[in-house]
Order: sequence, then structure tokens, then C-alpha cells
Amino acid sequence: MTSRVAADRLRRQLAAIFGAWGMPAGQAAVTVERMVESDLRGVDSHGVAMLALYDELRREGRLTVAPEVRVVRESPVTALIDGGGGLGHYPSTRAMELAVAKAMAAGIGAVAVRNSNHYGAAGVYALMAVRAGLIGVSTTGVHRPAVVPTFAAEPMFGTNPIAFAAPAGRNSPFCLDMATSTVAIGKLKLAAFAGRVIPEGWAVDDRGRPLTDPHQALRHRHLTFLGGTPEMSSHKGYGLGAMVEILSTILPGASYAPLRQSRRPGAARHDVGHFFLALDPKAFRGEGEFEADLDDMIDALHAARPADPAEPVLVAGDPETRAVAERERDGIPLSPAVLDIVRAVCAGCGAPNLLTEAT
Amino acid sequence: MTSRVAADRLRRQLAAIFGAWGMPAGQAAVTVERMVESDLRGVDSHGVAMLALYDELRREGRLTVAPEVRVVRESPVTALIDGGGGLGHYPSTRAMELAVAKAMAAGIGAVAVRNSNHYGAAGVYALMAVRAGLIGVSTTGVHRPAVVPTFAAEPMFGTNPIAFAAPAGRNSPFCLDMATSTVAIGKLKLAAFAGRVIPEGWAVDDRGRPLTDPHQALRHRHLTFLGGTPEMSSHKGYGLGAMVEILSTILPGASYAPLRQSRRPGAARHDVGHFFLALDPKAFRGEGEFEADLDDMIDALHAARPADPAEPVLVAGDPETRAVAERERDGIPLSPAVLDIVRAVCAGCGAPNLLTEAT
Repeated sequence: MTSRVAADRLRRQLAAIFGAWGMPAGQAAVTVERMVESDLRGVDSHGVAMLALYDELRREGRLTVAPEVRVVRESPVTALIDGGGGLGHYPSTRAMELAVAKAMAAGIGAVAVRNSNHYGAAGVYALMAVRAGLIGVSTTGVHRPAVVPTFAAEPMFGTNPIAFAAPAGRNSPFCLDMATSTVAIGKLKLAAFAGRVIPEGWAVDDRGRPLTDPHQALRHRHLTFLGGTPEMSSHKGYGLGAMVEILSTILPGASYAPLRQSRRPGAARHDVGHFFLALDPKAFRGEGEFEADLDDMIDALHAARPADPAEPVLVAGDPETRAVAERERDGIPLSPAVLDIVRAVCAGCGAPNLLTEAT
Repeated sequence: MTSRVAADRLRRQLAAIFGAWGMPAGQAAVTVERMVESDLRGVDSHGVAMLALYDELRREGRLTVAPEVRVVRESPVTALIDGGGGLGHYPSTRAMELAVAKAMAAGIGAVAVRNSNHYGAAGVYALMAVRAGLIGVSTTGVHRPAVVPTFAAEPMFGTNPIAFAAPAGRNSPFCLDMATSTVAIGKLKLAAFAGRVIPEGWAVDDRGRPLTDPHQALRHRHLTFLGGTPEMSSHKGYGLGAMVEILSTILPGASYAPLRQSRRPGAARHDVGHFFLALDPKAFRGEGEFEADLDDMIDALHAARPADPAEPVLVAGDPETRAVAERERDGIPLSPAVLDIVRAVCAGCGAPNLLTEAT
């Protein structure tokens, strides 16, 4: 059965774990905030559930728990940050804060991060810009290739997400937060669990042929790029995935995963990279004009004639905004599997388990 | 039969037409260059073939042939340009030149354009940045909605393309140039011409239901967003199309097409908007490092195991680079339909027809 846990208790739990790991308090507080924000937004795959991977990296010696995060290069509108081999949330938050400060001062700011790790949900960084009245962009590379380019038979990129957020007035922000793959591994697991076949175009085998059996798909772990098949223009999703890799990995000089072993043999760190951009609408338009026009566009989309009256037309960010309201009120639903992860991680580092005892 | 026309002759033909229209020579030269570049790159739909639309706009009084193009707002790293109601190529070229100059000086430059029109192929602007050693981004709105959001039954956006280009070293540039729709109208026409059914997910009817008959699809002209169906994640393509609209239309204060009639009743101009970004890799890395790492990524993609040995793995921009080499050597193939368009446009404005007489 799923348990509901208040966001604050989840924050205390994560802080206790990171404290036990030896993460400096300031870095831990930021990491906790980004992770719980993901859970509050309903992006369950990228919040507390990621503890399993983070703990695995730590136990394998692939994660610096007290990294030195430093600005390596800087100009009034750009910067490069080195993440020191730690988790991605803290250097990414520093990076977007820096991009926001530059955009507030100059109109635009672009900051890239190298030598980092998984940073959670891409959207939470784009929304940091929105809270400052700016447009925000956030992209990241992924340490493990899982997505197969059009016409290829092997994965050459991660799910390489891109997030884009923009401030509205009376409406909640526009917030697109998407993997450039057709679906994530999680959708294969759900189909396998439910005993359903998957549509042709979600996953392929070792020869690039579409799979419809979710169990086979999970064995191969070869996802497709958005579009799914060449006939449905998967080359566009592939192009977007490569664009994300260029911004997130090549621009900061992080490691392109398929070449990591040959270029840095024996390196323990995955050297993941990220990219952040903040852009001030007031550099282009009068105060409030951008937000008013975006409101009109969002209203027009909500008012668009639906194909099925029972299924209204949504705007990117709508489901997450609804999840935040519901979860701040009722708590964050955690599955038994996630509670087990937390239990195991606590046991492994001596942190108190604040979730299962009291729920 | 298709005729081959040398790029230079096509340039002279277009210059003669724009001269007869009364377009100032400097603006005409730039417009010609962008259009012929599209044809050279094999993007036949966005070069000389667009003359039909441009002439229609002119005859309907919707196009200013001698527009005043001016910088409305400017900072060291941003600018807003007003296109004066003319074709998009000239203000867009000015905009990317400005973005490039700012990025060369400061690391990054973002320029938006309002009160413009169709600007041809998105990719040719992104490549202007690459020729200066920079990363380039180019997006545009479209005056006529044709793409239906997920769960909707009516079109709310144009094909809203995005282009992203980046400089490599030994390889030709990475250049993604894609509509955010699954396919363009042109693919429906090809299927109708060939008597083939179209895949479910390319187009829908007035109730949002997938069509497989290309003739019906052409009657409705309702395309889908990349992904094609909700099950294949069309909400991602829809989100990308909305992102392009926010950057291209809302940011510069151009007209969001579905609201144009109600907000500016009787306005003759379509008030299309565009967005351009240039970013200097040298703000983040040492000279040549970005290009070298991008080369390695491109080489790895070309070397990826193909699903079918007869169909190698491509990188965005490969087909266009090949087309340029072939068409600079052998001329640009123009179909009888395109030659007819040129003939009619010449007849309508008194320009000499330089293509059919001498071919």
C-alpha cells in the first residue's frame, strides 16, 4: 500500500541521510529541496526514488559526498562550474542561481556544469528562473546510454531531458520537462507489471527492431527517440537528444558516455554535464507584457476544442501544478518499494528511518 | 521533368523578381541568398518554391516590399527588431548578425524579431552563427495554425520549427532543422501523389481522430505534433511547439495566430515573430576544444552499429551537407511545378524569366 508522507518529514529524512553520508549541510539542504520539489510535482521517478542510484554510486566510490564546487570560468553573462564529482543538485542550483543573477543584471545568462552527476528533474531548475520572472532552460546528459539513434542498433545517448519554463500572470507557469526519448524505462516497467504489450516504437532489440513485449524490452533497455520509428520522424527526437548532449556535455567539457571508458580509462566519476539558461522578457518587452500575452495563449489552449470532452486540452506544467497543490495538502505518496529503498539506505549509513516508523 | 538550374542563375532570377516588386537591392540580395541556400541544402520546400506564398501575400496587400527594418530595443547581449511587415529573411539575417556580433564580444547574444513574415528555412540562420565559430539557435512562428495539440481537435500552432547548429572541426557542422510537427504537409502530398496510405499519427480529422487517407488529410490540413499520438508521447512535440511559439511570438510581442483576428481586427500583416541565439563555446572552453569533442561524438555516431548495414547512421546536417556538394556541382533540381510558379510570378510583375527560356 502506498503511504502518504508530508513534504517536511521527507525533507528531514533526506537531510538525515545526507548528513550521515558526510555531505556538508548547505549542500545537503539544497539537494533535499530539489529532490522533494520533484516529488511534490509528481515526478516520482526523479525525487526520493533516486536514492537507490545515489547510494549505489556512493558505495561504488563514484560519488564525492563533500565535493568542492567551484566557478572555473566566468564572464558577466556566462560561467562554467565544476561540480567536484558530487551529486548534480547542488552545482546545478548554484549554476541556475548564477544564470538568473546574470540575466537580472544583463538580460541573459548561460551557465554550464561539468564533473557532476544525476541532477534530478530538469524542470525544477527551469522553474528557479521563473520564480525570478525569467524564462529558464535546463538540460542534462546522462551517464548511461539507453536511447538508440535512428537507423542504429545500439544506444548512444541517455534519455537527455530538456526543460523550458516561462512565467505567466494569472496562469501557473508554462513548464515543459521532457526526456527526448519516446518514453522512459518506467513505462516499460508499468506495462510489464500490468501484463500489457507495449506499442511498436517504444523500444528496440539489439538489432534495432521494434519490441512489443515489455519483458524483452526491459532486458534490452534500448529506448527510442521521440517519434519512435523512422516513419514517424524519430530522426527529430534523435536530433534533439544530440542537441541536449552538445549543450550539456560538449559545451562544458564533460564526458560523452559512449567514449568515457576509452578516453578516461579507470576514472571512477561519470563526469556528467548540465546546461542552464535564463532570459529576461523585460529585455525585449515592457513590464508584464510577456506574461499577459502568455496568459492569453495558455487560455486559448485551455479553451481549444477537445477531441474528447472528458479529456481537456492541457498545457505543459498543468499536471505538475495540480500535483503540487494536492501533495502539499495530502502528503507525498510513497510506494512500498520506495519505502524499502529509504529503509535500506538508512540502514547502510546509520541514519534514522523517519518514514516507516511513524507512518 | 525536373530541370537543373545553376545556383547563380537562380540568384539572378530571384533578384530580378524582387527588383520588379520594388524591394530595395540590399534587402533583395540578402533574401535571395537565404532562399538559394535553402535550395542548395535540399530543403526544396523552403526556397524558391515559397515564391508562390510570398507573391500571394504581396498581391493581397499583406507584404511590405520595402519595409523599414529597425532595432527597437538593444542591450550588449539582447535586441528586439521590428521587421516592418516585409519578408522574414532580411530582418532575420540582421537579427542573427547582431546576435553573432554580441556573442563574439560578450559570449552570448539573443535577438527577437516581430512584425515579420515567413523567413524560409530555420537552419540557414543557425548556420550563420556556425560560420562565426558559434553555436546558433533559430526558431519561428507561422502565420497559419496547422498542428493540433494533444487531446485537441483543432490546430493551435504552425509547424513551429527549431534549428540548432554547432561547429565541428574535421566534420561538417551539426545542424538540426526540424518542424515540431511529425511531418510537413509536403509528405501528405507525396503520399497522395503516390497513392499510398499514411501512417496513423501523421494527421487527424476535425474531431482529432487519426486519418490514413492522404486525400482526406490534405482536405483537413490538421497535422500532429512530433510523437503523433498520445500513446507515443505527442505531448512532448506539443510542448516543443509551444516553446517555439513562446520564444518566437510571445517574447518579441508578435501575433499568436489563433488570436490575431480578435486582437488586431482588420490588420493586413500577419505579424510573424522569430527568435535567434548565438553562443560562443570559447566562453566555456579553450580554443578548439569544443570542436574536437563534437568531432569525436559525431565520429562515434557515424561508427555506431547500424540496424541495416545498407542504411548508415546519420548525424543532423549530413543530408544537407551532401546536397550542397551535389547541387553546387550539378545545379539545383527544379520541378515543372516550381518552374510554373516562377513563370507566373515573373508574368505578374514584369520580371524577365531567366529559368525556362534558357534551360
